Amino acid sequence: MHDTTDNRPAALLAMGPGIAGRLLTPGRRDRLTGLVRTDPALVAHHLPDPSPAVTAALAGAEVLLTCWGAPPLTEAVLDAAPRLRAVVHAAGSVKHHVTDACWDRGIQVTSVAAANARPVAEYTLAAILFAGKNVLGSARRYRELRAPHDWREELDGWGNHGRTVGIVGASRTGRRIIELLRPFDFEVLLYDPYLPPASATRLGVEPVALDELCARSGIVSVHAPELPATRHMVGAAQLAAMADGATLINTARGSLVDEDALLPELTSGRLHAVLDVTDPELPPAASPLYDLPNVLLTPHIAGSLGNELHRMADHALDELERFATGRPFADPVHGDALSRSA
Amino acid sequence: MHDTTDNRPAALLAMGPGIAGRLLTPGRRDRLTGLVRTDPALVAHHLPDPSPAVTAALAGAEVLLTCWGAPPLTEAVLDAAPRLRAVVHAAGSVKHHVTDACWDRGIQVTSVAAANARPVAEYTLAAILFAGKNVLGSARRYRELRAPHDWREELDGWGNHGRTVGIVGASRTGRRIIELLRPFDFEVLLYDPYLPPASATRLGVEPVALDELCARSGIVSVHAPELPATRHMVGAAQLAAMADGATLINTARGSLVDEDALLPELTSGRLHAVLDVTDPELPPAASPLYDLPNVLLTPHIAGSLGNELHRMADHALDELERFATGRPFADPVHGDALSRSA
Repeated sequence: MHDTTDNRPAALLAMGPGIAGRLLTPGRRDRLTGLVRTDPALVAHHLPDPSPAVTAALAGAEVLLTCWGAPPLTEAVLDAAPRLRAVVHAAGSVKHHVTDACWDRGIQVTSVAAANARPVAEYTLAAILFAGKNVLGSARRYRELRAPHDWREELDGWGNHGRTVGIVGASRTGRRIIELLRPFDFEVLLYDPYLPPASATRLGVEPVALDELCARSGIVSVHAPELPATRHMVGAAQLAAMADGATLINTARGSLVDEDALLPELTSGRLHAVLDVTDPELPPAASPLYDLPNVLLTPHIAGSLGNELHRMADHALDELERFATGRPFADPVHGDALSRSA
Repeated sequence: MHDTTDNRPAALLAMGPGIAGRLLTPGRRDRLTGLVRTDPALVAHHLPDPSPAVTAALAGAEVLLTCWGAPPLTEAVLDAAPRLRAVVHAAGSVKHHVTDACWDRGIQVTSVAAANARPVAEYTLAAILFAGKNVLGSARRYRELRAPHDWREELDGWGNHGRTVGIVGASRTGRRIIELLRPFDFEVLLYDPYLPPASATRLGVEPVALDELCARSGIVSVHAPELPATRHMVGAAQLAAMADGATLINTARGSLVDEDALLPELTSGRLHAVLDVTDPELPPAASPLYDLPNVLLTPHIAGSLGNELHRMADHALDELERFATGRPFADPVHGDALSRSA
């Protein structure tokens, strides 16, 4: 029932199937319905949607709460949503559903990319710490040997004291990793063509060119956005520059790395890799990536999963609360920045 | 040649074979010989040692630089070292070579346990971050499936947002892990019978009894010293109290966990484990620990290895410098504390 003294803005949920239930625990659903007028059980998986309930909700919606799999907000969708003023995206990148039409119409957009960067950075930190000591390689060797062995000799060149870590991209995730690396004895290099060297120095890292980063780092971790200019930015030359035994970590996007150039470096055993993303996203069943002893391959799980969705939901609800009380978003997304960010 | 105006104290290296060369890079060897009168190529692996060179060096030694595998400093050894005033141990525990005879004679002892706690805490942090997201289990499942799969569904109960981590023992390693866990969204419980609750609160953790810690923690990590009282402290009751799907991490000593009680919990798949130490240290070749998909077993590598030995060497050289310049050790070991520490 619509109380005419009710000042809460009208909202509609729009995201892929099976997401809303995980994002919004009962307590968070209550907070949502306290902030905005919405039916939390009504979720638009496709837009436009012929159902009268979605059509009516879209026609009245002042704000959309979106997440992964949200339908693209095309001209046609926006024409059917004449009151829409804002999109609160409870996930990272808005590129797949926030169109130029949204920017053209001055719709405000926010995302919880900062919240989603946290688990990615955490996975990456763990991958760095394990890579520096060859922990997973040692576990595999231990399983094979099952006998006394001189591990001190075998692991002589390893360890995390004074190791050089190269971060590719001062994205939210890249910056978070740089923060998380501070308590350790790493030397941290950063490549980011958009970051002034003084800003890198303020972050406590050494700004270098990409090829130099690859040549000097025992561990290279990629955190650049997926853009035409970043496709295969880690290619044959960069991989060849990496030292024997170095590790490449990719938790960003598969397309950033030239996998055709990477595979021979991995099958030869010269390089190690931790890959949470690949190109294509699901490697063919015959891909050596699944089986190589020097590769940790995971199914795109570094980002938010399980209870980590609740962190995204909380940040999104904070932004909805700002919207509902007439305050600006804490973390607005600007259309013109998307040509160089995720 | 012994210059009579040379005030440097006389020192002897005593440690297991193959250690000194890894500990002392050429630059560190130069620093050592600048601080003390010693032949860095002369390393006592056994004491007493019939060789004239070791006998002479021991007779003149005011300080011993020891590391892993150092021979026990018995009454007979100390009788042969009448000028000995101090032992600088370039590793963690001094229990295996510093005897009661040393304490009785008032020999000063220092160790670089703080430096050695760092890599152990780092390994543990990585193990916690990976355990919370079931990263290694997902990698194994991905290798088996090689097909589209609903990972969001499969990993629904996982994630590191708000997960409870139980630290058993406010040892140097336990405290370092508590520090390292601060940037994350964990709730941290601590069991340590020697730590006043107010101290736990100052560390930012909740002091609880061991059984409560096991019952409430999604991840339990053991950092207690090896003592008669701590043998099998994590036994059948504690393991049974742990929730389904919880992870036990042991980077301390194998004897702290009752492996006979742990094995059925692991073979059934109810619990997960990350074990860098076992009891016995090398599990029998038929042990399921090597192969279980829910166990990461590593060959006691969490402590210092490779370049991490250089951190221990630097700390030990700092202590030697204090000794040589008449200052007290920064990190003295006291005999009476060894009944409750490593």
